[in-house]
Amino acid sequence: MRIERTALADLAWGAAFLGSGGGGDPYYSLLLAEAAFERSGGFELIGLDEIADDALVAPCGWIGAPTVSVEKLPNGNEAVSGLRRLEAIMGRRIDAVLPIEIGGGNGLAPFLAAAELGVPVLDCDGMGRAFPESQMAIFNIRGLSACPSIVTDASGALAVIETTDNDAHERIARGLSVSMGGIAHMVEYPLSGAQAKATAIPGSVSTACAIGAAVRRARADGRSSFAALERAVEATGLYPYCRTLFDGKIVDLERETRGGFSVGRVIIEGLRSSSRMMIEFQNENLAAWGDGVLRAIVPDLITIMDSETADAITTERLKYGQRVRVVAAAAPAQLRDATALSFVGPAAFGYDTPFVPVERLNAEIAA
Amino acid sequence: MRIERTALADLAWGAAFLGSGGGGDPYYSLLLAEAAFERSGGFELIGLDEIADDALVAPCGWIGAPTVSVEKLPNGNEAVSGLRRLEAIMGRRIDAVLPIEIGGGNGLAPFLAAAELGVPVLDCDGMGRAFPESQMAIFNIRGLSACPSIVTDASGALAVIETTDNDAHERIARGLSVSMGGIAHMVEYPLSGAQAKATAIPGSVSTACAIGAAVRRARADGRSSFAALERAVEATGLYPYCRTLFDGKIVDLERETRGGFSVGRVIIEGLRSSSRMMIEFQNENLAAWGDGVLRAIVPDLITIMDSETADAITTERLKYGQRVRVVAAAAPAQLRDATALSFVGPAAFGYDTPFVPVERLNAEIAA
Repeated sequence: MRIERTALADLAWGAAFLGSGGGGDPYYSLLLAEAAFERSGGFELIGLDEIADDALVAPCGWIGAPTVSVEKLPNGNEAVSGLRRLEAIMGRRIDAVLPIEIGGGNGLAPFLAAAELGVPVLDCDGMGRAFPESQMAIFNIRGLSACPSIVTDASGALAVIETTDNDAHERIARGLSVSMGGIAHMVEYPLSGAQAKATAIPGSVSTACAIGAAVRRARADGRSSFAALERAVEATGLYPYCRTLFDGKIVDLERETRGGFSVGRVIIEGLRSSSRMMIEFQNENLAAWGDGVLRAIVPDLITIMDSETADAITTERLKYGQRVRVVAAAAPAQLRDATALSFVGPAAFGYDTPFVPVERLNAEIAA
Repeated sequence: MRIERTALADLAWGAAFLGSGGGGDPYYSLLLAEAAFERSGGFELIGLDEIADDALVAPCGWIGAPTVSVEKLPNGNEAVSGLRRLEAIMGRRIDAVLPIEIGGGNGLAPFLAAAELGVPVLDCDGMGRAFPESQMAIFNIRGLSACPSIVTDASGALAVIETTDNDAHERIARGLSVSMGGIAHMVEYPLSGAQAKATAIPGSVSTACAIGAAVRRARADGRSSFAALERAVEATGLYPYCRTLFDGKIVDLERETRGGFSVGRVIIEGLRSSSRMMIEFQNENLAAWGDGVLRAIVPDLITIMDSETADAITTERLKYGQRVRVVAAAAPAQLRDATALSFVGPAAFGYDTPFVPVERLNAEIAA
């Protein structure tokens, strides 16, 4: 399937929603992808069933604090230089690339590299959303190795990491992103085609495109973007539940860049009520409480959106006084089993509350 | 020249003195080197004139906060794993290793690796003392590249760094040392034999041995260790001036681990006077003031030694109440020219005072 220019913008919109507040603002990634589109005349997106089992498949994306990515622009060659190094290490060409996470700018990041390498993008990703840490990828949950991984920066510096411990890999890569100026590109979890088929979240790139397209059409027709979003997300099958949790105005915001992450919390107050929703984040939105009652928690998706434009607002773009809607969606089933929850569930983020699916949390409240 | 077991202890003593408070406590390095000595039956030290111009020569040593090195023991394989990777990258065997810095534990670090690889240690180093940052090596001052460099840790993790910017290399390697737990081993500035001959500080390993041996003999004969030290250091030619600057007791100590360094200052008060010497350090002792008057400053060497045992005390081992002597020595001439001073002189450490040689500072005070 060819990804045309309109689909690119749809993908950016859908990826921003699936980012759950993280993955980096898609704005620059979209600009870079559009420029690459002009040069290359379009991108090829292929399904997991179209790749050979013995293919070499490379997940890639940006690592670092999104607060920094807003200010520090890429040089455009980071991904290609990392991917070329992976080819040198593996002694063979890469057959396809995929986003390590579909959420945020990282959902578009591989298109640029794909165009330069002349390879397709695989219609799948490693997180089904965005997560703040590398070992939260489904590839780690399924026992695959992150290494060799290659971290590159805008100055042309490159580092190859090798360790059999994916937690150590995350620490090392995070440290590199900090010492490389707060943001860096990473090629990690090199996969065979068979491994990608067995583990990746399937169809997430085309799903993000479909979500973006549905909202674009609703806007053009003067229909509600939010209603279209909820319907489109649930129609994908990958995210079987989607609802608006809250509508209000940001009345309190704490955010700092700590250990390579944007960490903080935001409080949203109802426009015509004293009802409040508090959301905590670490790059991504992690948990939302409405008047002290849990309404959604990782790995389920929580996205704060501009009430007027219906655009997703990444955590680094949150501002006091913004009018926002909080939309939550059920995470893909792969992220909700007991094994996956030990990597990406509440406990993995330091919460002692057990995971409760967003559809259950909100059914109980409605009852 | 064979390095026998006694010479190893002499080297540890001399390296500790030349460490200027840094380079890591030689105690563990000595234990590891002695164990390697038992296994291998001795080490070979060769002069720069004994190596071929087209040889591959690998400087190596530990990077990180010495405060951490006291608590986090190596696994013993870090250096070999880094050196083997360098061989794989260069597609050839390493012909000799050398300490990136003669000062502190790093002066002994390459012996362990040399024994494992079956190669000699080159009688030279990259700093003529110890310095806190990688780009302070004479190899950077002379325009050589630090990369490819290989950083390894006790968990078996490995990272290869490639950048043409040696300052960026230091930042990246420092970040790695932090994310690898505060201390890591690094193979850097891979050199040809010709480059080593043209740039390295020559004879520093045998010089450290000679200093240690002189003090050992003085102790055995019941002569003053400090007098023997001063004479032995000046006799080497490499460090043409050596004097005790102060004798007293530590009455104040500020030290913290910040950005991968041990940073702080110590105040020493005279035993029978209110005279005070203040010394500032960043891993290594940087500058010493006696009652507010500058008495020595980088790149000249400032070592704080136990008054009783005459053992050098690294900055991470300084303690309130210790009776100490402060001994300073002239840096090798290679570190004192205008180019070198821009990398390792006072300005490189944020001091706005110009470099004045220790012999001149103290001649003026005596006059």
